[in-house]
Amino acid sequence: MKKTILASLGLVTISLVTTAVAQIKPADQIKYRQSAYSFASWNMGKIKTNLDAKNYNAEQVKAAATAISAVAGSGLGALFGAPGGNTKPEIAKPENQALVAQLAGDFAKAAKELSAAAERGDKALVEKAFAKTGGTCKACHEKFKK
Amino acid sequence: MKKTILASLGLVTISLVTTAVAQIKPADQIKYRQSAYSFASWNMGKIKTNLDAKNYNAEQVKAAATAISAVAGSGLGALFGAPGGNTKPEIAKPENQALVAQLAGDFAKAAKELSAAAERGDKALVEKAFAKTGGTCKACHEKFKK
Repeated sequence: MKKTILASLGLVTISLVTTAVAQIKPADQIKYRQSAYSFASWNMGKIKTNLDAKNYNAEQVKAAATAISAVAGSGLGALFGAPGGNTKPEIAKPENQALVAQLAGDFAKAAKELSAAAERGDKALVEKAFAKTGGTCKACHEKFKK
Repeated sequence: MKKTILASLGLVTISLVTTAVAQIKPADQIKYRQSAYSFASWNMGKIKTNLDAKNYNAEQVKAAATAISAVAGSGLGALFGAPGGNTKPEIAKPENQALVAQLAGDFAKAAKELSAAAERGDKALVEKAFAKTGGTCKACHEKFKK
């Protein structure tokens, strides 16, 4: 419990979430974090489809990138106070908090760049930012996803 | 099948989603749409918490409203080609497509207003827009959610 609270506080600091919101039931934390990443994954898939397709739908890519960036900026740290689901218990260990903060920050930064590239409607730039964003997903999954 | 396709096309038109993205497996459509609304629901909850609390965290409300607006603008229509989950089969009936379009449009419009209010950091305005957005959720749930 102490470890969980410590980890939660660490993550909460990263994402500027107030304590009011950190009081989410463990089962709900798991449900909401899975929802957030699943929603982001659907939107990543839409961008991939557009990058692979002959006809690039700039409006759709913009909406999808906005969604991914909104997920990354939504204060996900508040949803990692509870272990379980697909998340390895290692994510809550105090000695991993610096890495967790770095990985979360990398994702948020890459998603912002992806959103900015999509806003400009520049397919080549989107392709680059998309690969970078996907890399940040993978980096965290390799460390903390079961 | 014909009905499903008709309904899907109707929804796709509303949300400006290309056919490339409409080709999502039925099980994935259900998973992704549940994720999208669950993620939106978490963010609605954060805004509610802030409206009820003494200390209003404008940054958090802004991030949450951005997330809800991103969900509403993400082309959810592409996820309603498959019946099942919590969705009543009525949503796919051709005679309901005008209503579905209206309800989806109402949600998107209210979410945009909520995001704009949150951007201004005006708690009273957010309260009003939040109630309106919640009303659009409820209106659709009453008609088409099991």
